[in-house]
Amino acid sequence: MENPEIERGFARARVVITGGLGFIGSTLALRLAGLGADLVLVDSLEPQYGGNRFNIAPLQGRGRVEILDIRDTERLKPLLEGCDFLFNLAGQTSHLDSMHDPVTDLEINCLAQLTLLEACRSACPSARIVFASTRQIYGRPHYLPVDEKHPLHPVDVNGVNKMAGEAYHILYHDVYGLRATALRLTNTYGPRMRIKDARQTFVGVWLRAILDGKPFEVWGGAQKRDFTYVDDAVEALLLAALKEETKGCVFNLGGERPVTLDELAGLVVAAHGSGDFSRHEFPAERKRIDIGDYYADDALFKQVTGWRGTVVLEDGLKRSLTYFRENLTHYV
Amino acid sequence: MENPEIERGFARARVVITGGLGFIGSTLALRLAGLGADLVLVDSLEPQYGGNRFNIAPLQGRGRVEILDIRDTERLKPLLEGCDFLFNLAGQTSHLDSMHDPVTDLEINCLAQLTLLEACRSACPSARIVFASTRQIYGRPHYLPVDEKHPLHPVDVNGVNKMAGEAYHILYHDVYGLRATALRLTNTYGPRMRIKDARQTFVGVWLRAILDGKPFEVWGGAQKRDFTYVDDAVEALLLAALKEETKGCVFNLGGERPVTLDELAGLVVAAHGSGDFSRHEFPAERKRIDIGDYYADDALFKQVTGWRGTVVLEDGLKRSLTYFRENLTHYV
Repeated sequence: MENPEIERGFARARVVITGGLGFIGSTLALRLAGLGADLVLVDSLEPQYGGNRFNIAPLQGRGRVEILDIRDTERLKPLLEGCDFLFNLAGQTSHLDSMHDPVTDLEINCLAQLTLLEACRSACPSARIVFASTRQIYGRPHYLPVDEKHPLHPVDVNGVNKMAGEAYHILYHDVYGLRATALRLTNTYGPRMRIKDARQTFVGVWLRAILDGKPFEVWGGAQKRDFTYVDDAVEALLLAALKEETKGCVFNLGGERPVTLDELAGLVVAAHGSGDFSRHEFPAERKRIDIGDYYADDALFKQVTGWRGTVVLEDGLKRSLTYFRENLTHYV
Repeated sequence: MENPEIERGFARARVVITGGLGFIGSTLALRLAGLGADLVLVDSLEPQYGGNRFNIAPLQGRGRVEILDIRDTERLKPLLEGCDFLFNLAGQTSHLDSMHDPVTDLEINCLAQLTLLEACRSACPSARIVFASTRQIYGRPHYLPVDEKHPLHPVDVNGVNKMAGEAYHILYHDVYGLRATALRLTNTYGPRMRIKDARQTFVGVWLRAILDGKPFEVWGGAQKRDFTYVDDAVEALLLAALKEETKGCVFNLGGERPVTLDELAGLVVAAHGSGDFSRHEFPAERKRIDIGDYYADDALFKQVTGWRGTVVLEDGLKRSLTYFRENLTHYV
């Protein structure tokens, strides 16, 4: 049954999504199109990021698509005029790329966020803004589950820049009254995710391998993680945007339940019906930035918005595999 | 009596100071020259920042001075070759400037820090690096005194960028083994500080007004703050650089004792022997980023390094006023 608040809130609303052709952005766009929103999807379509035109094929041309880099403020700013909602999902997501090219990561995850918020001040000062932040900024947990009070200690350049990008959003609320909220996402998975490499999450690589009939590689195995199915993450983004009490606040979004990577690997094989994986020791260079176990305490977000995840891992993995089985050529 | 560890540690050491013609940088340079260090002072001498050639007049030409912007990595990198110690003090320090021109603040306090650390990886991978961080990154204290575990919630763009700049330093220690340490300074005051405006701290404006025979303005008055005399801050920087146990760590540096701004105003008048001040309500736009009381818990730094402040406020203010009385034309 549809949530009437969400139906009312987004019908005919003007919604800008940065990273709109990406994994979460496109899933959000499809959902919003169904709600009757007027969409502007901004995406750089840089090949190393998550954008993929096929992701929005079901839109059949509805919604405006603008291929531009969010660093290009001059072109971005006019698109924000009259915007009711801005879902700010564009970002460089690869840990390793951020270490090999830290300046590009800074430009996208830090500088472009600041210039985007400056643009919002004049172009859409009353828009509701939701920033997709990340659990990565916590670094190695001091305690579990990790709540929003946990200290931030990013373990890669990407984490530092995302931490700053999030902080700008909250600051621009505090100082200028922009209605910005940040959601610290954990591992999100589902149809439309990047599976050609590990730039979004290792789960993508696992899914691709098993669909290719190859064993996938599990590094470590005992680490606990939590996983959010993308439809649940989209619902969280919608609620974060709608609820007045979220503005100026930062929330964790957790997954269905914590599982070890070994357990997850077993679930992936079971969801596919066959397949195999191999276990490997962490290489030394990854060990230095390994964070051990992580899973989120998202009680605060649940309390404030009423959000609940609805898709269990077993189902989410099956749906993901079904999607990629049918559309594999568009993702490899 | 001189600390023998400091004497041994810096004699003939090659030391680079960014912001070397600034308030703290130049005071550090004079101290290091006395210890027999081989100095390279890097400063942009941008008029809105703290650099001032007169600050290093006592060096009488000893030490190499390079006028360059730390954003200019190409010119900066060769200066780091063979460097034993890098005191990284260059920064944009004005809260208000960071709000009016957030991108410049980001370029200096965030991007340039990252490119500097990248340069260190190849030019001086074993150098001891001390980064001058700031109490501003805590924002409004949740408890007092504020220790290093306090959450970070910067209240201006400058604070966000300094938070990121600090995090890069710790990250480059964790991942690449750079021997970096961050000191979160509180209000530092003393000879050579910028007094022509409030870009470094309001204390400078107070000192200048009273020397001009004008009443200075106290905004609020009941807020507590702590103040470090610059010679004590310099000693802390030296110890932070020398002690092996500091690497990869972040420390607060506190002041002599917490005082209200009203008390401080009284001490300034007493130190000068005459003068007056007026009290004003905070304007609305400042109130939004006012942090209330702040003073640091620096027990951790004291424990690890043995550092103790030695200059009480009354003396420090007298010494500052004496210095500026004698050299006023160079600072206004």
